Amino acid sequence: MKIAVLPGDGIGKEIVAEAVKVLNALGLKFELESALVGGAAYEAHGHPLPESTLRLARQADAILFGAVGDWKYDQLDRSLRPEQAILGLRKSLGLFANFRPAICYEQLVGASSLKPELIAGLDILIIRELTGDIYFGQPRGRRQAADGPFPGAQEAFDTMRYSRPEIERIAHVAFQAARKRSKKLTSVDKANVLETSQFWKDVLTEIHAQYPDVQLQHMYVDNAAMQLVKAPKAFDVVVTGNMFGDILSDEAAMLTGSIGMLPSASLNGSQQGLYEPSHGSAPDIAGKGLANPLATILSAAMMLRYSLNQPAAAGRIEAAVQKVLAQGLRTPDIHSPGTTRVGTAQMGDAVVQAL
Amino acid sequence: MKIAVLPGDGIGKEIVAEAVKVLNALGLKFELESALVGGAAYEAHGHPLPESTLRLARQADAILFGAVGDWKYDQLDRSLRPEQAILGLRKSLGLFANFRPAICYEQLVGASSLKPELIAGLDILIIRELTGDIYFGQPRGRRQAADGPFPGAQEAFDTMRYSRPEIERIAHVAFQAARKRSKKLTSVDKANVLETSQFWKDVLTEIHAQYPDVQLQHMYVDNAAMQLVKAPKAFDVVVTGNMFGDILSDEAAMLTGSIGMLPSASLNGSQQGLYEPSHGSAPDIAGKGLANPLATILSAAMMLRYSLNQPAAAGRIEAAVQKVLAQGLRTPDIHSPGTTRVGTAQMGDAVVQAL
Ligand SMILES: CC(C)[C@H](C(=O)O)[C@@H](O)C(=O)O
Ligand SMILES: CC(C)[C@H](C(=O)O)[C@@H](O)C(=O)O
Repeated sequence: MKIAVLPGDGIGKEIVAEAVKVLNALGLKFELESALVGGAAYEAHGHPLPESTLRLARQADAILFGAVGDWKYDQLDRSLRPEQAILGLRKSLGLFANFRPAICYEQLVGASSLKPELIAGLDILIIRELTGDIYFGQPRGRRQAADGPFPGAQEAFDTMRYSRPEIERIAHVAFQAARKRSKKLTSVDKANVLETSQFWKDVLTEIHAQYPDVQLQHMYVDNAAMQLVKAPKAFDVVVTGNMFGDILSDEAAMLTGSIGMLPSASLNGSQQGLYEPSHGSAPDIAGKGLANPLATILSAAMMLRYSLNQPAAAGRIEAAVQKVLAQGLRTPDIHSPGTTRVGTAQMGDAVVQAL
Repeated sequence: MKIAVLPGDGIGKEIVAEAVKVLNALGLKFELESALVGGAAYEAHGHPLPESTLRLARQADAILFGAVGDWKYDQLDRSLRPEQAILGLRKSLGLFANFRPAICYEQLVGASSLKPELIAGLDILIIRELTGDIYFGQPRGRRQAADGPFPGAQEAFDTMRYSRPEIERIAHVAFQAARKRSKKLTSVDKANVLETSQFWKDVLTEIHAQYPDVQLQHMYVDNAAMQLVKAPKAFDVVVTGNMFGDILSDEAAMLTGSIGMLPSASLNGSQQGLYEPSHGSAPDIAGKGLANPLATILSAAMMLRYSLNQPAAAGRIEAAVQKVLAQGLRTPDIHSPGTTRVGTAQMGDAVVQAL
């Protein structure tokens, strides 16, 4: 079981170190190899995703990823900015299926912006297509407008596009995930306006015929953004395109109030996957031992389950995380009166202890 | 002052009738003329935006719009569905600037999903570009993929695009609106991924030079979706493109918990505007006298202010709405224990009384 460890920037190093600590405590045999990615790689090699890092990622069964990005790279050309590393990894490895659970832990209900009764017990799974859509669609760029309201003016453009096989494969992933849960799938699109969305909706409806035991509901993206606020627990599994998924998965994550707890998995068709916390690189608190490592530790659990065929070990980690929460241990982002404030390493140690 | 009255479908008729009642009670001279739009127009004329309706709208100083749409039209070809009427009106009249206030009324704080301290006093203004972006960008359609991951496969595509003058004019509208409020403007984009967004950001930054007294902040759309949940009151004026604005304005509206209260205005460069409630046609409660007419009545107030140069009359309506809320009158959507439940017409009558 070969794992590429890519800590990245900001708090990435600290949180990945704790996840590695937890992996090493499982008593399993892993081959771990680290490499630079993001701003750290740009500084060392002039590119956020150097060839050597990409090679390591390709050869690994799974990638444990921290976070990338820092304001200090804002002025770089887009192709050199840290985020390109994550986009490049997704595309190069074909990681088309992004799993973003939004779970509200019993002990952290109070951290949410929402009233407790609306959020307690929340457990939804957003499945975001991750290698298509307007994120990667060609053509894109700047040019002189040939038509539109201001012909001749300078304009910028991007292409949203989805082909049938791209939609089919994410649809199968989503229906299968729904089958393992409550058998309710919500597909989010903007079919009343977009051709791509209408096609998405048509293909989802077709594939649904193969999953008659799953209930499929279509919802417009604007309405989904509203319903998530109004009654998040009405959702179970949600599937959507790359762009809408970016927005809705972050909205759903923030509803829980504790994004420091939320892992994610990005898979291709051969069980290879990239695992990263849902939160960012938080350069403002980097190096201070304040970051919450639990989202990364839970991402390592997802890695064991989805890419490394170690569901029992995954379950042990998840149970250990539940245990440290029950013990009242809290990093600053989830701290509340009456609980015990701990730092990044202490939290990692406590999870190891609880194993 | 010529007003085109387009009630539309579902609850549209009932709520527009109350707004007309209020307009008529102001003691001003209006020329009101009604026409069919949406599903109602499709049934009568075979098209959701008949030529006669469009002509009336063009000739009017302002359009008072109810709502369009009903599930029974879901199977129609997209070009004939009710929503096309609203898209057609926006495009034909060049209504590029959409004002979507998200206001939480003091008496309705409890209706929100959010904890009271996070939402009480919320008063933000989302300015959404309304005639460009992927909503109208050509080319769009279905074809065989020439490249991408599955060359030769069937695909659907849309074009996101913004030209410099389109961005400039909405930027001016937004900076001017911010100047009249707290002088804080947040521009939302996805410049880390999209060419169109990078251009949007560049042009916003350029135009900012003409408004040095306004503070400009750029925010990625996924982060904006999160921050709206986490701390909505940190925003004041938000400006964004058509697609992101569709999602964020609805999210922000639902944060208040009382979308039955939220008006909207869509303006072109010559003060002509379309005014409609932020909510939809709610066919499930249509004709039952249950709908909340206040969003439409407040839209009429916006109409008086922005298109008809009657700010005093607008203020009178807004004060009257505040008064009926203070009296404890509530339609079912905003009813809570201890308040008085009223129907659509009673609510309209109460506003007239309060004038
Ligand atoms: C960093 C950025 C390119 C990325 C995205 O938009 O996909 C991030 O927001 C995410 O959701 O993983
Ligand atoms: C009905 C639909 C086409 C429309 C839009 O997407 O603009 C609506 O959602 C809105 O926001 O006014």
